[in-house]
Amino acid sequence: MSAPLQIGLVLFPKVTQLDFTGPLQVFSSVPGAQVHLIWKRIEPVSSDSVMMLTPTIAFADCPQLDVICVPGGFGTDDMINDEEMLAFLKQQAEGAKFVTSVCTGSLVLGAAGLLKGYRAATHWTAMDFLSAFGATPTRTRVCVDRNRVTGGGVTAGIDFALTLVSLLVDRRTAEAIQLRLEYNPAPPFNSGSPDTAPPEILALMKERIAPAQIRRGEMINRAAARLG
Amino acid sequence: MSAPLQIGLVLFPKVTQLDFTGPLQVFSSVPGAQVHLIWKRIEPVSSDSVMMLTPTIAFADCPQLDVICVPGGFGTDDMINDEEMLAFLKQQAEGAKFVTSVCTGSLVLGAAGLLKGYRAATHWTAMDFLSAFGATPTRTRVCVDRNRVTGGGVTAGIDFALTLVSLLVDRRTAEAIQLRLEYNPAPPFNSGSPDTAPPEILALMKERIAPAQIRRGEMINRAAARLG
Repeated sequence: MSAPLQIGLVLFPKVTQLDFTGPLQVFSSVPGAQVHLIWKRIEPVSSDSVMMLTPTIAFADCPQLDVICVPGGFGTDDMINDEEMLAFLKQQAEGAKFVTSVCTGSLVLGAAGLLKGYRAATHWTAMDFLSAFGATPTRTRVCVDRNRVTGGGVTAGIDFALTLVSLLVDRRTAEAIQLRLEYNPAPPFNSGSPDTAPPEILALMKERIAPAQIRRGEMINRAAARLG
Repeated sequence: MSAPLQIGLVLFPKVTQLDFTGPLQVFSSVPGAQVHLIWKRIEPVSSDSVMMLTPTIAFADCPQLDVICVPGGFGTDDMINDEEMLAFLKQQAEGAKFVTSVCTGSLVLGAAGLLKGYRAATHWTAMDFLSAFGATPTRTRVCVDRNRVTGGGVTAGIDFALTLVSLLVDRRTAEAIQLRLEYNPAPPFNSGSPDTAPPEILALMKERIAPAQIRRGEMINRAAARLG
C-alpha cells in the first residue's frame, strides 16, 4: 500500500469559506487522501461568512504536501505581504506535485514568486493584478499550466478540484466524486460571469468594490516591489 | 429600517459540509441578513470532511427564523429519530416564512412531519425514502412547493440558495450574489447525475452505498412509524 496523498488547504482570517469548502468536499472524497487545514497556529480563524474555522495542523508541523492549495477572499490582501505565509508556500512548493489556488488565492501564490512565467486564473475582479507577479492572467474556470493549477472565482473551486483529482489520481475517481456530490449544476439565473450578468448588476458590483480594488492595488504594489 | 432577515442552518454530527457551506456563502451575502449556525449546544460538531464546525447559537437561544434550512449527510440517519432536533424544526416551522433543506436534509424535514402533502427534492440516492413521510419525491435540482423549498444532492445547495434569495428578497439580489461568487459552472466531466454518469461509475457507486442504504431504510422505517 502506498503512502496516502497529502493534500493541504491553507486558512487565514477573512478567507472566503466556499473557496476552500468546495475543494475540501472533493479532496476528502478521494480514497486514501489525507487532507489538512493549515494555519500558523492551531487557533480558530474567522471566515468571511459567519463560520469560524478550525485548522487541523500548524505550519511548523505540516508534512511535505503533494498538493498545496490557497483559497481566496478579502484576507488575501493581507496574506500577499505576510512573510510567514509566503515562506510556508515557497517551502511546500519545492516538493509538491501540484501548487494550486482558488479565486484570489492565486495572488498569494504570485506574491510568493510561484507564478512567474505561468498562466493563472483568479476571480474576475482580480484578473488585472496577476501580471504584477509575472503571471499571465487567464480567463478560464480552471487553468492548468505544468504543475500550477488555478481556479477562477469562489464556485470555480469545485470545477478546479474535480480537474485536479483527475490529474492527481484518475478520471474515474473524479467522475465518481462528481456523482456523489450530484454536481450537475443548474444556476437559476445567468449572472455568474461579467460576460453574462445584466449590465446594471455588473455596473453596481463594480461600483461597490471600487474602494476595495484601490486598497488591493496598493497591497499588490507592495508585494510586487518586495518580490522584485 | 426593517428587522434583519433571520436565516438559520442547523448543524449535526456527520453533516456533509458542502450541503450548508454553499448556501451559507449565498445567505451571508444577502444585505442585512443575520445568519445562524444552530445546534443543541455551543460545542464543536464534526462534519463528514475533516473540518470541525462551530455553531453560533443553541436551539434554546435561537430567535424565530424567517428561513430554517436542514443540510444533509450521513448524520441525517440519526437526526430523523432525534426528538430534540425534530421538536426544534417543528417549532421553528410554525413561524418561518420558508422551511427548507438541501440533500438528505429533506428526510429530516419529512421525519418532523413537515413535508406531508408536499413535493420535495433530495440526493438522488435517497429519492425512494421521501414517500415514507408523505412527500412526493421530485427529481429536480430545486423544488419549490408553497413555502417548502428543497434542494437536490450536495452541490444543488448553491442553486437552491440562489433560488431562495430570489423568492425571499428579489431576483436582482440573487443575480448580484451569483456574480460575486462567479457561479458560472463548467464541470470538467458529465458525471453529476445518475442519468449522465458512465454506467460503470453508477454501478460502482450503487454497490458501494448498498449497506448504507439498508441501514438508512431501517432508520426511515422507525421514523415513519413514529410519525404515524
